[in-house]
Amino acid sequence: MMSISPVKPIGRRIVLVACAVCLPILAARAQPDPLPSWNDGATKQAIVAFVKDTTTAGSPNFVPEPERIVTFDQDGTLWVEKPMYSQVIYSLDRVPAVVKAKPELANVEPFKTVMSGDREAMARLSMDDLEKILAATLSGMSVEEFRAEATKWLDSARDPRWKRPYTELAYQPMLEVLRYFRANGYKTYIVTGGGQDFVRVYAERVYGIPPEQVVGTAGATKYGYGKDGKPFLTKEPKLLLNDDKAGKPEGIHLMIGRRPVAAFGNSIGDREMLEYTKAGSGARLSMIVLHDDAAREYAYGPAQGLPDSKVGTFSQALYDEAKKQAWVVISMKNDWKRIFTFD
Amino acid sequence: MMSISPVKPIGRRIVLVACAVCLPILAARAQPDPLPSWNDGATKQAIVAFVKDTTTAGSPNFVPEPERIVTFDQDGTLWVEKPMYSQVIYSLDRVPAVVKAKPELANVEPFKTVMSGDREAMARLSMDDLEKILAATLSGMSVEEFRAEATKWLDSARDPRWKRPYTELAYQPMLEVLRYFRANGYKTYIVTGGGQDFVRVYAERVYGIPPEQVVGTAGATKYGYGKDGKPFLTKEPKLLLNDDKAGKPEGIHLMIGRRPVAAFGNSIGDREMLEYTKAGSGARLSMIVLHDDAAREYAYGPAQGLPDSKVGTFSQALYDEAKKQAWVVISMKNDWKRIFTFD
Repeated sequence: MMSISPVKPIGRRIVLVACAVCLPILAARAQPDPLPSWNDGATKQAIVAFVKDTTTAGSPNFVPEPERIVTFDQDGTLWVEKPMYSQVIYSLDRVPAVVKAKPELANVEPFKTVMSGDREAMARLSMDDLEKILAATLSGMSVEEFRAEATKWLDSARDPRWKRPYTELAYQPMLEVLRYFRANGYKTYIVTGGGQDFVRVYAERVYGIPPEQVVGTAGATKYGYGKDGKPFLTKEPKLLLNDDKAGKPEGIHLMIGRRPVAAFGNSIGDREMLEYTKAGSGARLSMIVLHDDAAREYAYGPAQGLPDSKVGTFSQALYDEAKKQAWVVISMKNDWKRIFTFD
Repeated sequence: MMSISPVKPIGRRIVLVACAVCLPILAARAQPDPLPSWNDGATKQAIVAFVKDTTTAGSPNFVPEPERIVTFDQDGTLWVEKPMYSQVIYSLDRVPAVVKAKPELANVEPFKTVMSGDREAMARLSMDDLEKILAATLSGMSVEEFRAEATKWLDSARDPRWKRPYTELAYQPMLEVLRYFRANGYKTYIVTGGGQDFVRVYAERVYGIPPEQVVGTAGATKYGYGKDGKPFLTKEPKLLLNDDKAGKPEGIHLMIGRRPVAAFGNSIGDREMLEYTKAGSGARLSMIVLHDDAAREYAYGPAQGLPDSKVGTFSQALYDEAKKQAWVVISMKNDWKRIFTFD
């Protein structure tokens, strides 16, 4: 103590002086563009203005930090959803293993079609068929087994167009938006129609979003004991939350318990979440991604005359509602400088 | 810039020296007892040793910060659950308003008994009756209306023994445990058999726990539009999650998606959560509060010969399991210096 007591007050005084003069300069210098993959323009400006408006002390629209919740749809909003949702591809890829464990399924539809390997026949499978495949491949194992299987698949599977792991098909501009909101005290949530447990497997690694901030379509689990007496949870084929359309605000209430201040989506499945967010008091931001870039990603709508799509439909009616309710439409073609981190 | 450039490096060097020497001393000085309402002894020591073991870099049991999840039952663990769960008292108090809105209920049981004001008859109501009352009083309104009603009640209702708001009946030693875990990078969650939306109303104020970290028995909500066209959520009388017994680990998986590293409970309703927590790998802490202090709070068990209880049962079998599985039993009488903040 003795040797440092004369140093401390001097050091402190110098630092205080240095800080008072330096910090504003350092701060101004230390603020690079938080959204470098966005073209300058009204869309980028809407995000930056909103974050500043809601996080600057003294702003009439200031939102206290605990209430700063922003929600993001995943498929088509944070990453590619074409030609099919990644989770559906995972489920189709899992069918042989399920049939191996339950050989009686080999001659039962829709498993028979999947086992035939006939891609055209598989593309014609109905929603009902797909649900049967999802139920069979996403339940019946412990939550740990499911996590291990999905991790293994994500490490080896490749997207047919870019020949890269699906986890590399996250949109770079949206990764920047996630980081920008978090850097300003927002809690970022995924609110997806996809399986909650599936998305949780990679959300932390890909988006920096922990499992407890993933709200998704969720099945029940069942508590039980193994032969060693240790307790574990089994994934059951029983739907608890269908986190799509009206299920999104309902899921937000169930899992978060607060209305988001901002929300991002891309299809008719996100409409209610965007409405619900925008209907709150104070400043609110609802944004919706339009896939209008066939060259760099995909183009589908059918809003604005883009080709119709069963996956990630952005109807003209939704586009009109977006305009009417002052949601901000993000044009991938015009607003994004690049699409992927590897671009 | 010119005027400060010679100051900066000097200031920096002095500070670096001062910090290296001072900080350990300051740190040692700045660490008052984090659990001052706990008597010194093995129970308090178990908490402190566990937190140090899991948060000290280099410890073989170090837990990375994102995985630091600790869960707390509420009724009987964080606050008083006698003579009845506060939420049940709230529901009984709400019955006149419900009957006013739906007069046909006045002559229907169990509402008739509640309206009679006959306390003895009310005490004899079955679990089935209580569930009817809970469903009628906790659903049928928007989530905002529910929050407003519950807030009003919490502000005015008084506990019959201490004549204080229920929110003052949180246990001071447990408030210290919550703060201590949070100060060490843990996320604190409530995992309660009580209604999730009810507990969310006051959890932030009373426990410092935000709505998104309250896991509880949860009903469905329904998305719809008001006359003004604005969307809102209505609370439905449909159970989504019965967050009791096996429902606790199931609810933890649904809402958190990670196994807790530590858990606190007090009754047979917490057994599965404590087992599930303790069964994880690495250091795990499961603790259970024994109400053995009739003078300062209540005494009930029937573990260790304490009087039997329908609310918050701590059976002898549970006590034996606690000992066998090395859960730590907290004796309110012996381990807590004081019970309430107002003591």
